[in-house]
Amino acid sequence: MPSFARTLTEIPPSPLTTVEQLLRSHGHDSPVALHQGKTVFPPCAAPRTWERAEFGIAAHEHAPPAGVPALRRRLADAATARRGTAVDVEQVLVTGGATHALSVILHAILRPGDDVLLLSPQWLFAAGLVRTAGGVPREVPVFLELSGDPDFDAVAVVEDAIGPRTRAVYFNSPNNPTGHRLSEDVIAGLAGLAERHDLWLIADNAYENYDFSSDGFVDPATVGRAAAYTFSLHSCSKTYAMPGARVGHLISPPGCAEVLTKWSLHSLYAVSTAAQFAAFEALRTPPEELAARRALAADAWRLTDEALEIPHTRADGGLYTFLDLRALGDGGEFVRRCAEEGVGLAPGQVFGEHCGGWARICYTAAPPPAVLDAVHRINKITTGGQR
Amino acid sequence: MPSFARTLTEIPPSPLTTVEQLLRSHGHDSPVALHQGKTVFPPCAAPRTWERAEFGIAAHEHAPPAGVPALRRRLADAATARRGTAVDVEQVLVTGGATHALSVILHAILRPGDDVLLLSPQWLFAAGLVRTAGGVPREVPVFLELSGDPDFDAVAVVEDAIGPRTRAVYFNSPNNPTGHRLSEDVIAGLAGLAERHDLWLIADNAYENYDFSSDGFVDPATVGRAAAYTFSLHSCSKTYAMPGARVGHLISPPGCAEVLTKWSLHSLYAVSTAAQFAAFEALRTPPEELAARRALAADAWRLTDEALEIPHTRADGGLYTFLDLRALGDGGEFVRRCAEEGVGLAPGQVFGEHCGGWARICYTAAPPPAVLDAVHRINKITTGGQR
Repeated sequence: MPSFARTLTEIPPSPLTTVEQLLRSHGHDSPVALHQGKTVFPPCAAPRTWERAEFGIAAHEHAPPAGVPALRRRLADAATARRGTAVDVEQVLVTGGATHALSVILHAILRPGDDVLLLSPQWLFAAGLVRTAGGVPREVPVFLELSGDPDFDAVAVVEDAIGPRTRAVYFNSPNNPTGHRLSEDVIAGLAGLAERHDLWLIADNAYENYDFSSDGFVDPATVGRAAAYTFSLHSCSKTYAMPGARVGHLISPPGCAEVLTKWSLHSLYAVSTAAQFAAFEALRTPPEELAARRALAADAWRLTDEALEIPHTRADGGLYTFLDLRALGDGGEFVRRCAEEGVGLAPGQVFGEHCGGWARICYTAAPPPAVLDAVHRINKITTGGQR
Repeated sequence: MPSFARTLTEIPPSPLTTVEQLLRSHGHDSPVALHQGKTVFPPCAAPRTWERAEFGIAAHEHAPPAGVPALRRRLADAATARRGTAVDVEQVLVTGGATHALSVILHAILRPGDDVLLLSPQWLFAAGLVRTAGGVPREVPVFLELSGDPDFDAVAVVEDAIGPRTRAVYFNSPNNPTGHRLSEDVIAGLAGLAERHDLWLIADNAYENYDFSSDGFVDPATVGRAAAYTFSLHSCSKTYAMPGARVGHLISPPGCAEVLTKWSLHSLYAVSTAAQFAAFEALRTPPEELAARRALAADAWRLTDEALEIPHTRADGGLYTFLDLRALGDGGEFVRRCAEEGVGLAPGQVFGEHCGGWARICYTAAPPPAVLDAVHRINKITTGGQR
């Protein structure tokens, strides 16, 4: 057999496989998998057949590479309403989830060896996506710092990290795994950097429906002149509880459509038509329903926050908190002991090289009583560890 | 706005856009779009909801990166039956269509500047996929030569084209656009080259259900020792008339799963669960139904072959014939005149740099009477052009 050229040895097969193996091997009676980002919320739309007239395209017909026009129209209208300025259909690219959207962007903007600054800790596939697009991921720790000290000057730290080959700054807010929400001031600062240093901003808005702050979610593209250099990633996975649909979309500055559509076409051709119809239906979800889900998530956060005896980050939004295990010795050992007690934790280092002393839990991964029960098991281990 | 790094100016936005614009601009009463590879066959499966027990996973849950186990099992069983030797589940990767499968393979095997030999004319996105993976596509004309002369030594021509940076040979048989089916001898010759020169073979089996020969489709991986260096691409698009599902799969030699799954994960995460369920259902299609579709395609071919007055390639399979326009002067002008008469032809050059004097038609793109009517219009233009 010939060899592969790029075996991706620098990327683990799947960052959470170890935890799953641990959970299985201990075979606890009532395991609670808090390590994954799954939520217990029912999906906003389910697959079904439809009449051609309803969507303009039958399920077996392949969609145009940029997406089904009816869906793009609805997404552009939603973006226009959210941003308060007109977003044209041409700016919307339907993608096979946010993963695919990020892959498309990175292929389009990176030459081999260019780097991307990842505001860290970051979504667990972000670094791998930069590598597979030929780039170099550079983690810039800011979220734990901001979480501990609102006056921490994240923008200055990011500016210091900009090098001659930096092409973009990626951030995810509300943040997975810390739950920290970047303030409008920080976003404005990043937008200023982008303008001064000719960088792209990549705003991963996967958790846009889960901002618990009184102001609510601020689309980063609406801050200052950010819209001119921001790629906005949106996903059905969290917003509509439909990760299996694999539908996301990308909103770009005007003039990007041709290049991005070519990259998308040459990786996937088009997104599954049935999945696009499911997204089309999900977009009909009443705002009250989305608000109710946000309230449920906020309730789950408060329960978890009150019950957790171990230090952890404050969730302004998102579906996670990051547990601070640094006082307990080896973070990996703590994750193993939790698995022994049937509780899955996502080890910190998959979210950033500097996060070995941390672990993530998803507080909506099970119904509240199960999450509470898991937290009590975590607490017991904590106490044991401190004995 | 910052700039893009790789704008893909060498790749057209969509190779058939021009024809579609021409067809629209002439507004013929009864246009017949023979330029696309769509067929009139109904899909073998439609989207629907299902119980979790039926497939092991609910539609809103994301599938494992390599595919839903129940679907992979069924695909491995089908491959085992087709090949007559055991294909393990581990060798099967479910992909977002054959486009995505090819993108995954090319990313995994190419370093920037490596080349891939494309047996030409070739599927219209093959060259672009090589470029977007950082490689150099090198077209090796063989199909028109083999179509005209069965003794043409294609293997020697391919061997001559192998250079120091050649990593793979890609072929599509039955071939889109010529309809030529590579003989077992040619495939054995290619397998020998792969072995001697340490190359991968990439067998695009999109038209496996449309081999009209008495022997029927021969899976290239079953020829000689080809299985050890062959990536086999399969798609639901043509086999089950479901291009909108965007589901394909890749069967690789043992030992490739980890690397290929990483590449797939970092481009798409996973394939839409509902689309995978549709593929699972399509695999239940009775063999007689698939044979009936093959017979319908063969009938459409014979009708078209008899009616066409212009020279064209003989279809051993597939859904196309390639029209030889070289005696009529400018091929592009002929495509324009056909569009004026409401008949869409795919211009030859999108299938290979050397094919400017040719054009492709899909003889299953409309019901037989409509295809015949279109062929009569083509004939009229041919006669006019020869006056």
